[in-house]
Amino acid sequence: MKVGVLGTGMVGQTIATKLVELGHEVTMGARSAGSEKAVEWASGAGGDAAEGSFADAAAHGELLFNCTAGTASLEALRAAGAEELRGKVLVDVANPLDFSQGMPPTLSVVNDDSLGEQIQREFPGARVVKALNTVNAGVMVTGIDGTVLPICGDDDAAKQQVTSLLGDFGWPTDTVLDLGGIDAARGMEMYLPLWLRLMGALGTPQFNIAVVRG
Amino acid sequence: MKVGVLGTGMVGQTIATKLVELGHEVTMGARSAGSEKAVEWASGAGGDAAEGSFADAAAHGELLFNCTAGTASLEALRAAGAEELRGKVLVDVANPLDFSQGMPPTLSVVNDDSLGEQIQREFPGARVVKALNTVNAGVMVTGIDGTVLPICGDDDAAKQQVTSLLGDFGWPTDTVLDLGGIDAARGMEMYLPLWLRLMGALGTPQFNIAVVRG
Repeated sequence: MKVGVLGTGMVGQTIATKLVELGHEVTMGARSAGSEKAVEWASGAGGDAAEGSFADAAAHGELLFNCTAGTASLEALRAAGAEELRGKVLVDVANPLDFSQGMPPTLSVVNDDSLGEQIQREFPGARVVKALNTVNAGVMVTGIDGTVLPICGDDDAAKQQVTSLLGDFGWPTDTVLDLGGIDAARGMEMYLPLWLRLMGALGTPQFNIAVVRG
Repeated sequence: MKVGVLGTGMVGQTIATKLVELGHEVTMGARSAGSEKAVEWASGAGGDAAEGSFADAAAHGELLFNCTAGTASLEALRAAGAEELRGKVLVDVANPLDFSQGMPPTLSVVNDDSLGEQIQREFPGARVVKALNTVNAGVMVTGIDGTVLPICGDDDAAKQQVTSLLGDFGWPTDTVLDLGGIDAARGMEMYLPLWLRLMGALGTPQFNIAVVRG
């Protein structure tokens, strides 16, 4: 499948590399074509890897991953262009973490709204699925046995397609938990402050949560 | 031990009943002495159970539980009186859930502050430990094998005392995870929107999360 990955950071690189390994044709998008990190990634990724602007990546992909920094995601998606997003599944991996006031970060959108909802509202033609934002980049593409990966979105067929792809990433279908509509992105994003403290207490970002019934 | 439980709702009743079962002398506090729910609880609890005002419960307890609604907790603690809180361990179980705009609730304090921090700031003489707010009332007093119960607070000795008491509740010491200072209450409270969606997806509030390393 042709996939566009928006974002050149750790998350974008990890997901794009995994997609190439799985045999997909991947274009990594940055603010402008020819960005150092995207060029380096595309030249080293092996397989079918290209780079370009956000618009290039969005135009290329039948399915898109938003791996930009959450505070820059709307701007990146505007640069990609609403027309290029229309009808496509857009996996929103971003967290709206604001580090401008130092550590710990706050969320730039929170409580009665979320980044996932903002994206779906501004790009109603996109089929937004929030997923993978609750784990570290390394965990995203391996899964952890027995744990849970929440997803949400308003489009059931889009969620099914993403669930299938997550299976290839290392998340068997029974580990993917559908939390409902895109408004569940509030909870998935507001989990980040707890995740950061769990990381601190555990001494590693390589973990995930399981759900255990009483 | 003499324990004061502030709050007469499901959480207060569940915790107060468990404390009585464990042999503690418990006074349940309400806005005013003689509240219907507190009187009913005290008369039915068996063991050493009494009721009174918030101030009565605080004066009685060597250790206190804040089980009031989060949006009313500061007011309840003011009614209890700063002098009655001084030097005492105060287990803050409350979540600042605001249902005034309907479902889903929002948090009345969030992101760069938390109820736990507000309480510690306003009552610096209290030794605030945030605990148990991440699970349903029934789960609070039984524990769930293999899961994790985060706690936080600025006073290490207070956290040790609470950890010991939690062991009696059903949370072995290795299930209690110290997330650090009281500012970790942000993450513990901001987990609630995810908890609510997990409850919806699972169809039960009787669950908890485990942490699994990758």
